[in-house]
Amino acid sequence: MLKTEKKIQVVENGGVTAPKGYKAAGVPAGIKNGKKEKKDVAVLVSEVPAAAAGVYTTNAVQAAPLLVTKASLEKTGLLQAVVVNSGNANACTGEQGIKDAEEMQELTAKVFQIDKELVGVASTGVIGVLLPMDRISEGIAEASRKVSGDGGVDFARAIMTTDLVKKEVAVQVEIEGKVVTIGGAGKGSGMIHPNMATMLGFITTDAAIEQAALQAALRQITNRTFNRITVDGDTSTNDMVLVLANGQAGNDTLNPGHEEWPLFVEALEYVALHLAKAIARDGEGATRLIVAEVCGARSEEDAEKVAKTIVGSSLVKTAVFGADANWGRLMMAVGRSGAEVDPNRVDIWIGSIQVAANGMGMEYDEAEATLELQKDPVVFKVNLNVGHADATAYGCDLTYEYVKINGSYRT
Amino acid sequence: MLKTEKKIQVVENGGVTAPKGYKAAGVPAGIKNGKKEKKDVAVLVSEVPAAAAGVYTTNAVQAAPLLVTKASLEKTGLLQAVVVNSGNANACTGEQGIKDAEEMQELTAKVFQIDKELVGVASTGVIGVLLPMDRISEGIAEASRKVSGDGGVDFARAIMTTDLVKKEVAVQVEIEGKVVTIGGAGKGSGMIHPNMATMLGFITTDAAIEQAALQAALRQITNRTFNRITVDGDTSTNDMVLVLANGQAGNDTLNPGHEEWPLFVEALEYVALHLAKAIARDGEGATRLIVAEVCGARSEEDAEKVAKTIVGSSLVKTAVFGADANWGRLMMAVGRSGAEVDPNRVDIWIGSIQVAANGMGMEYDEAEATLELQKDPVVFKVNLNVGHADATAYGCDLTYEYVKINGSYRT
Repeated sequence: MLKTEKKIQVVENGGVTAPKGYKAAGVPAGIKNGKKEKKDVAVLVSEVPAAAAGVYTTNAVQAAPLLVTKASLEKTGLLQAVVVNSGNANACTGEQGIKDAEEMQELTAKVFQIDKELVGVASTGVIGVLLPMDRISEGIAEASRKVSGDGGVDFARAIMTTDLVKKEVAVQVEIEGKVVTIGGAGKGSGMIHPNMATMLGFITTDAAIEQAALQAALRQITNRTFNRITVDGDTSTNDMVLVLANGQAGNDTLNPGHEEWPLFVEALEYVALHLAKAIARDGEGATRLIVAEVCGARSEEDAEKVAKTIVGSSLVKTAVFGADANWGRLMMAVGRSGAEVDPNRVDIWIGSIQVAANGMGMEYDEAEATLELQKDPVVFKVNLNVGHADATAYGCDLTYEYVKINGSYRT
Repeated sequence: MLKTEKKIQVVENGGVTAPKGYKAAGVPAGIKNGKKEKKDVAVLVSEVPAAAAGVYTTNAVQAAPLLVTKASLEKTGLLQAVVVNSGNANACTGEQGIKDAEEMQELTAKVFQIDKELVGVASTGVIGVLLPMDRISEGIAEASRKVSGDGGVDFARAIMTTDLVKKEVAVQVEIEGKVVTIGGAGKGSGMIHPNMATMLGFITTDAAIEQAALQAALRQITNRTFNRITVDGDTSTNDMVLVLANGQAGNDTLNPGHEEWPLFVEALEYVALHLAKAIARDGEGATRLIVAEVCGARSEEDAEKVAKTIVGSSLVKTAVFGADANWGRLMMAVGRSGAEVDPNRVDIWIGSIQVAANGMGMEYDEAEATLELQKDPVVFKVNLNVGHADATAYGCDLTYEYVKINGSYRT
């Protein structure tokens, strides 16, 4: 997909503050467990108002911060700051939840002396509990004091919930001979499923870009990245990905008519895909990333259905955990995906080992297949042989640890 | 749903041979592991050809026995015998698989001296491996010799794969003053074992009934019973439910115009629901049955979407395993179900404890809610408050044992 990836340079240890004109911080405010052990309030701010775009969960139950952020962004098309708390989702909290999300906006706006509608708000954590606004307030004040040009890493840490590793990345491309940087941070873990999961993504760039073009680009790349991962099939109430573009790189404003538009979109997709895969790999209890590459489909939609069904199948996920070469489960997933398939044409590979041809099993070395299933990532390739479209989806294995984590999440 | 349930009498220890004119047997033929330890070939036969109906998996990959049985049944509308093997699904076995299923038909037809198209064939077990036809043949011969009027229990045992308990039931109703008996046997739902496929249901009755009416009734009750359970969300290649009605009760032929048609359909649904719930409760690694009762929906389809999303959610299933009253996960499931919902109107109960009203949490006794979550079944009630339709779905908790069974099958 990333034809010109060679033009895309990864910035070592880069994150949301890698692009010009952004500062961030993350502090422990005692939201997570009442104790100030883990960072749980994060702030990101741009020197100037940035063209902004957002995508939100498809869940009919949407958390207060999403509703508040969406309303502001649709009105202004701009963001200059983002405030995030982890440990409490501010979801299913009714009118008070909306008031609290708006207060987070106002508190952040006041510190940076900007319009409150230029502040994006995000929350992630337990559903149905009101935010401890006193702690939130202290956290915002402290984080705002601490924002710095290398605070991206603290921002990435402060938005984590059950994530085991922070998720951030940054890349650079040359546009009009000028260096354009794109950085991102994300969190995931549970309730991850195609169509925006308990997933938060924040992407910053110093590129100058038209807001409408940025929104279109975000939606396009989201469908090929964040919407192609699953951890447990559950779609959360709080998913949101925000992109800020503050124009500090000094390039002419980008739009689809610009010669280097495709390069920018590919760089944006690179950042989104990196975060999406990091989220899948760090799924609750996961030990390995699962990649399902499907080709030979009638349409990309069909290929996506099959790929998502494979990475979403509990039986495929447990087979990976147990390194068990059960290709019958892959056939099952292909069959129930809803895609147009001819069972007698399906070819299946586990890593480099072909295990099925024309829908039937082949002679293969069990030990080699097991080795492929012990790799990270585990790669399944399926050729439907009914067309020419392809798609790739990402997931993780299902383990004892997932059951343990979710059998007692709140305790 | 079963308004006249009081008229439905359960037959103690009843199964597929409880109705008049049916004999059955189950024998160990060495299909499961080469050793003749567990029963794995079952035969059911009716004195006379029976009006018959069938429903089959929606998986695009369908096993040979389904294709063979479907073809025969669509042609004749009758069955006089059913032959089943466990231990091998005869799925993803190509042309040879079809030949083998047809040979099972022929072998059984020969013993009972009936037309081969009057024999239904079902298989459940390993996918992608050819049947050991020598053993199948011996098994059919032996089982056919042993068929008896009280062989229903052996039939129920021989169709089991990783099921922990046999699943059978029988009921009686009076129609035209004549006793009509309906019996049934079933085995594990979902892709219950790493390589094992699936849910099989066999229902017998001595009622006289028009074939078209029987097919319609089966489809109707299946949508409210077998199609409302989930274990792991994976749909197998071998699911099949068959109903035989041999008319030995001596009633006038039933059809929807018959005064007591509703009573017969309710009795049929009682049998199907009993088997379906038994299958869900015996789901892989399950410790408890989960019942999701949804009301106040705009349509029964919407109510069903919500109920099935709840019992299918990994996060709800793990919360039940951990007895964690995490009602936010129920709100999440309601929201992602695809049903028309107003998040601000949703009321939720865990057992008898209301935990959410108008989409928000309520004050409730955590200890009492935990007690409700330790009961079997665990009952969730959701009132969407946007309409008057309802539906109930059935599932089971997600446990370490599920991961163990599916993750370490070959190790």
